[in-house]
Amino acid sequence: MNTPSGSAAGVDVRASDEELGRIDQYWRAANYLSVGQIYLLDNPLLRQPLTVEQVKPRLLGHWGTTPGLNFVYAHLNRLIRARDLDMIYICGPGHGGPGMVANTYLEGSYSEIYPDISPDAEGMRKLFRQFSFPGGIPSHAAPETPGSIHEGGELGYALAHAFGAAFDNPDLIVACVVGDGEAETGALAASWHSNKFLNPARDGAVLPILHLNGYKIANPTLLGRMAESDLRSLFVGYGYEPLFVEGSDPEAMHRLMADTLDVAANRIRAIQAAARQAQGATDLPRWPMIVLRSPKGWTGPKEVDGQKVEGFWRAHQVPLSKVRENPEHLRLLEAWMRSYRPETLFDESGRLRPDLAELAPSGARRMGANPNANGGLLRRELRLPDFRDHALAVPKPGATQGEATRAMGTYLRDVMTLNAEARNFRIVGPDETASNRLDAVFEATDRVWMEPIEPYDVHLARDGRVMEVLSEHLCQGWLEGYLLTGRHGLFSCYEAFIHIVDSMVNQHAKWLKVSRGLGWRRPIASLNYLLTSHVWRQDHNGFSHQDPGFVDLVVNKKADIVRVYLPPDANCLLWVTDHCLRTYDRINVIVAGKQPAPQWLGIEAAVAHCEAGIGLWRWASNDDGREPDVVMACAGDVPTLETLAAVDLLRQHLPELKVRVVNVVDLMTLQTREEHPHGLADRDFDSLFTADKPVIFAYHGYPQLIHRLTYRRTNHANLHVRGYREEGTTTTPFDMVVLNGLDRFSLATMAIERVPGLNATAAHVKQAFREALIAHKAYIRDTGEDMPEIQQWAWPHGTAD
Amino acid sequence: MNTPSGSAAGVDVRASDEELGRIDQYWRAANYLSVGQIYLLDNPLLRQPLTVEQVKPRLLGHWGTTPGLNFVYAHLNRLIRARDLDMIYICGPGHGGPGMVANTYLEGSYSEIYPDISPDAEGMRKLFRQFSFPGGIPSHAAPETPGSIHEGGELGYALAHAFGAAFDNPDLIVACVVGDGEAETGALAASWHSNKFLNPARDGAVLPILHLNGYKIANPTLLGRMAESDLRSLFVGYGYEPLFVEGSDPEAMHRLMADTLDVAANRIRAIQAAARQAQGATDLPRWPMIVLRSPKGWTGPKEVDGQKVEGFWRAHQVPLSKVRENPEHLRLLEAWMRSYRPETLFDESGRLRPDLAELAPSGARRMGANPNANGGLLRRELRLPDFRDHALAVPKPGATQGEATRAMGTYLRDVMTLNAEARNFRIVGPDETASNRLDAVFEATDRVWMEPIEPYDVHLARDGRVMEVLSEHLCQGWLEGYLLTGRHGLFSCYEAFIHIVDSMVNQHAKWLKVSRGLGWRRPIASLNYLLTSHVWRQDHNGFSHQDPGFVDLVVNKKADIVRVYLPPDANCLLWVTDHCLRTYDRINVIVAGKQPAPQWLGIEAAVAHCEAGIGLWRWASNDDGREPDVVMACAGDVPTLETLAAVDLLRQHLPELKVRVVNVVDLMTLQTREEHPHGLADRDFDSLFTADKPVIFAYHGYPQLIHRLTYRRTNHANLHVRGYREEGTTTTPFDMVVLNGLDRFSLATMAIERVPGLNATAAHVKQAFREALIAHKAYIRDTGEDMPEIQQWAWPHGTAD
Repeated sequence: MNTPSGSAAGVDVRASDEELGRIDQYWRAANYLSVGQIYLLDNPLLRQPLTVEQVKPRLLGHWGTTPGLNFVYAHLNRLIRARDLDMIYICGPGHGGPGMVANTYLEGSYSEIYPDISPDAEGMRKLFRQFSFPGGIPSHAAPETPGSIHEGGELGYALAHAFGAAFDNPDLIVACVVGDGEAETGALAASWHSNKFLNPARDGAVLPILHLNGYKIANPTLLGRMAESDLRSLFVGYGYEPLFVEGSDPEAMHRLMADTLDVAANRIRAIQAAARQAQGATDLPRWPMIVLRSPKGWTGPKEVDGQKVEGFWRAHQVPLSKVRENPEHLRLLEAWMRSYRPETLFDESGRLRPDLAELAPSGARRMGANPNANGGLLRRELRLPDFRDHALAVPKPGATQGEATRAMGTYLRDVMTLNAEARNFRIVGPDETASNRLDAVFEATDRVWMEPIEPYDVHLARDGRVMEVLSEHLCQGWLEGYLLTGRHGLFSCYEAFIHIVDSMVNQHAKWLKVSRGLGWRRPIASLNYLLTSHVWRQDHNGFSHQDPGFVDLVVNKKADIVRVYLPPDANCLLWVTDHCLRTYDRINVIVAGKQPAPQWLGIEAAVAHCEAGIGLWRWASNDDGREPDVVMACAGDVPTLETLAAVDLLRQHLPELKVRVVNVVDLMTLQTREEHPHGLADRDFDSLFTADKPVIFAYHGYPQLIHRLTYRRTNHANLHVRGYREEGTTTTPFDMVVLNGLDRFSLATMAIERVPGLNATAAHVKQAFREALIAHKAYIRDTGEDMPEIQQWAWPHGTAD
Repeated sequence: MNTPSGSAAGVDVRASDEELGRIDQYWRAANYLSVGQIYLLDNPLLRQPLTVEQVKPRLLGHWGTTPGLNFVYAHLNRLIRARDLDMIYICGPGHGGPGMVANTYLEGSYSEIYPDISPDAEGMRKLFRQFSFPGGIPSHAAPETPGSIHEGGELGYALAHAFGAAFDNPDLIVACVVGDGEAETGALAASWHSNKFLNPARDGAVLPILHLNGYKIANPTLLGRMAESDLRSLFVGYGYEPLFVEGSDPEAMHRLMADTLDVAANRIRAIQAAARQAQGATDLPRWPMIVLRSPKGWTGPKEVDGQKVEGFWRAHQVPLSKVRENPEHLRLLEAWMRSYRPETLFDESGRLRPDLAELAPSGARRMGANPNANGGLLRRELRLPDFRDHALAVPKPGATQGEATRAMGTYLRDVMTLNAEARNFRIVGPDETASNRLDAVFEATDRVWMEPIEPYDVHLARDGRVMEVLSEHLCQGWLEGYLLTGRHGLFSCYEAFIHIVDSMVNQHAKWLKVSRGLGWRRPIASLNYLLTSHVWRQDHNGFSHQDPGFVDLVVNKKADIVRVYLPPDANCLLWVTDHCLRTYDRINVIVAGKQPAPQWLGIEAAVAHCEAGIGLWRWASNDDGREPDVVMACAGDVPTLETLAAVDLLRQHLPELKVRVVNVVDLMTLQTREEHPHGLADRDFDSLFTADKPVIFAYHGYPQLIHRLTYRRTNHANLHVRGYREEGTTTTPFDMVVLNGLDRFSLATMAIERVPGLNATAAHVKQAFREALIAHKAYIRDTGEDMPEIQQWAWPHGTAD
């Protein structure tokens, strides 16, 4: 269909037929090694006839996508060498692990990282054996795979990762193979639009290679069966120039692929040159992408047991599944592997023939050794401003109002400025940077936008460093790719809708856990979330926008990976933000509101409080450092407000009651030290929460989480938690806490009911609280607003410290 | 751009200019009512000059998208009347709640459901007041909104819902407005491909209307700024015929919209007629879709405070935000509202002028009264086979092996057959029906596939009732749409990847909770999940495919909405499946493995066990009905296997130890009755788990969940839970449980350590268990397989019942 020519297109590096012949051999070597990994325990070079004992007892792996991945790898190697490109390979069809391993083994990067898997027959034996084998390696591209920044488990994120890697990486080209199965996912379908955020003057390039092998596990693929004209229209519509490489004859395909890659590389170079010459005054270019249509299980068995395999979904996993049981399968396997003529590819020692080995790039140009795929190697610490410069003055607790995220915004503005030159910090979010009140960052940068910009647009620019798109998947995928290649960032999101990326967070947490166990993978910057517009302040959005459960998901992950912070006010949020930006290999979740709210702690008090993660607020307590009658605990900005208002009620109405206030910033302090490194020692926990006094705990999210974190603590039986219990609607802020029993009156009532002896004597106080709630309900029904005394309540007790 | 003509295209129903004039008035009435809802407390018809007191104190709502939605609604009304169409309206830009409410009010369906909101001045006053007001209605389209099956909170699912509604609904046309913000989401980007699953002979039609108003909260939209040629290519690529309606002059736009809708309706009719004449032998047709480009905030204030509003993102929410504070804003609001000339639209009583009212369809043809949008009205019970006919024979516990999902498959096959005529049952899943061993259903039906079918394809057909696509979002969205319009279904999914739809599940749970509180919404069939290919059997996929945390998400929802079942074997799975298909208004999660595993209960024992949801397994216990020394509890198939093997070990090595086995099928039984309707009474719980004996609980998922569910129980302090603790890799089945401490040896050791007095005396037994684990580890490293005695272990104790 295309008859592209590298030389015609600008650079005279067209592959010779001789070179393509060797590339074919290289490809055969990779295919051979891939099949070997799936099947063999021993006899790696087939120097003896294959026996049943040499075949793995459990055949676990995916052949179908692998030859195509190998084909791409071999041709990218040529492109890199011919043009000295800085390139990484993102393998969307992650099941093709055998291929990525085979290629990094062939190019030598694998053995450098894993010397035990040496480039000889013994190393090859171990290479085969370890694959999908206990104590070995997974069957997917994974952290263990050199050159990978993309776990191939859950499909859909390859292209977003690729773009994330390319941002602010002007010399990098990210080749990204997208499987036609993966292409059906939502995240991937949206990811094609990432081109609209990539600036050719400043960023690197992404070369998407849509690999149409036509089938998933047991079905054709949608894109594989699409009319070719529709396919072309679709990618033109997405803004690309699709280049088609289609066929099954290796010789013709090698020529077509090599020439097409030359065209693509020339196009990329031309786009970049024009944009860079224009000094950023560039419009959205039409980037090339490749549609590679090749048979599933290419070069594998055509038929097995009389059924079509090559070019069909039966090639997806192991085309021959009964090798140990069925001699015919064993024979077919041996014939298949010998069809690659291993004796012509590897020398006596089992090493790849030198004239083939030279087809791979060398050193850090090898895709398995490119430092961009081990981003910790490139990571530089951020330059951070002094967060104290952004502190709100809090002369007296609760006396001033402030918007926590607005203070954070000025801090982030300075982070932007300080790292503008390093170009290694970005903020992503779904169209909410301003509405989440981080808009001070727009004093330092803009939103990046490559489509037309109108004169009346606000804070849109080609070189903006804030990325807004109404797709949490893209935000997450871009940021992951950005972090994994050694940079830093923050994802600001509506709390309820961060659940959209739950599964991506799971995968990233797993990646971090495994990476931490690999000495050669260097730490990357943490994945930082600001969850705002949270459950308690959805006054006009209502029930559908109320979900604080992301924290629950996160705490299921490995303890050393996750941190959850609930700063009660702006100064605490500043400390937490600064802290999170300094950490690595973690997932940090910060939950903080954007609405005006009372401020509790001056900056030095905030620092001390946040460093401890949890603390007794002496100024709010009246237990004078002795054993209290009741502990009022809180975590989260709104629960803190309601708790302090409840304490105020108690102190007004029952001044003899000794109340202690404990505030939790770092949720992980609640767990025992055995469970989490931030866990408070039991002695300290008991000292804060007492061994036997009632504890009324007001928590931001689902109350059961607090029980789950504390069930091992001494005083757990006396812990009474209030939080979000899925009651919500369009209503006032105070009515929301009332609906969920988290309001000051309910908390104070709980305290009264739980303190022995108090319940009866304080019946009149409880009655007064009940009446106050009823009166308030009536008031808001009439006016649509909370009572002024609720809206304007302020902590009246001064500071005791 | 288009100059379509209804009459030219086939049906002579072209709108007259006079009719279009009245439609313009109808549209103005809807816009007027929309603005009124956002702003006014009183003076609904503006019969007096507007005062500050008549304006809401908190202005909460979204104007921007609303006039476009109203425009569409008015024109769909004409189309319905002219052609007597059965049509519902899915409003993707859910923020446009005021528009949907306004239109259902104008057509009368609103007042029929909510008589208090009467069609007169007093009703209009209440209509305005209730909007986004405490005690009132949400600002989005929501369950409270007549005619809606789609909550407008979280964006992305409109089109998938629309297709779900259209499947098996041959007479229905689902008009689906997709906002250009929503169009950026992953789920929506994938949803366009739903056309490849819609059979024009059997299914209804979806008419997507992409509403390009160009802006989100604070940004342009990607699709809104795309070159028109790319936009056209994109939708041609997706397989549609895009029809463009673009402009801002109402008169021209009315003509263009009316004529374009005629074209679209004629195309739909022609496609359906051809397909139905061909008796199903139809190929994928090119369905029409409409691109409607109109100004954001159309007909609202052009400028406010000197800044561009109409046609810009500033129109997104309330264009005039300081009406109470700023007299100029008040003046602008009044002028804006009066520009619709309410006195010409509503009569003396405040009722819509009769010649305008007649523009709406009548009765059930009104989109707010169409029973498809209140699917419970149409829901028929499924015809269900006798699940006992699919039972596995289990003469003795543990003696036979069986694949649980395979048995379920034959049951589902019969469900398919029995309801083939009713056409109200579908199975959705991401390409895994066969790999999850439900393939018996293919004896009764096929996978639906509208793209080309090759001779060698397997179980693909135009009229298949199994829907496979590699997008969990589409599976979920389609099924929700199908259920919400009164049908039944099952979603079969890899356990780990169901997290992809976490946020959709949240929204559906919220929808069900609110719907249950509305008398007029009839119950719909439950959303049923089969989660298989679960965490314990990911031998070759490894760590990235291991996540049992969906259950944790689900139990955060309202107790009366959710059920979680962990059937330990095939017969229990049969009961659970049958049970779930009989329920309504719930989310049922079934977790069950697909691999061959020992079978424990005959069908009658399974029925008794599952009906109770939890039970003492006497045949596995040796406590003879008396107080045991230790309770070995389990939930999930693999934990049950390991628990019984542990009990076997204990009985062999410590025959004097009295062991009780408790198995949990219905996870909700663990909660107290106050927390969940299925919760076991405390007395019964204590009787099962004892008041003070150690309980070793082997659980399928994250262990903390069991603590969370049981922390209120008497014996909680003695409960020791093992489950998945994020340890996993590519390894054998038994090694997986070993890695997580859930294996038989570890469980038996825990029991020994927890039974007072036993720990010291049984030291040799513990030592033997330790050595067994070490030996096993060595064995699998050598062979890649579990030891034969592990693989072949069978319960040796016969049945005691």
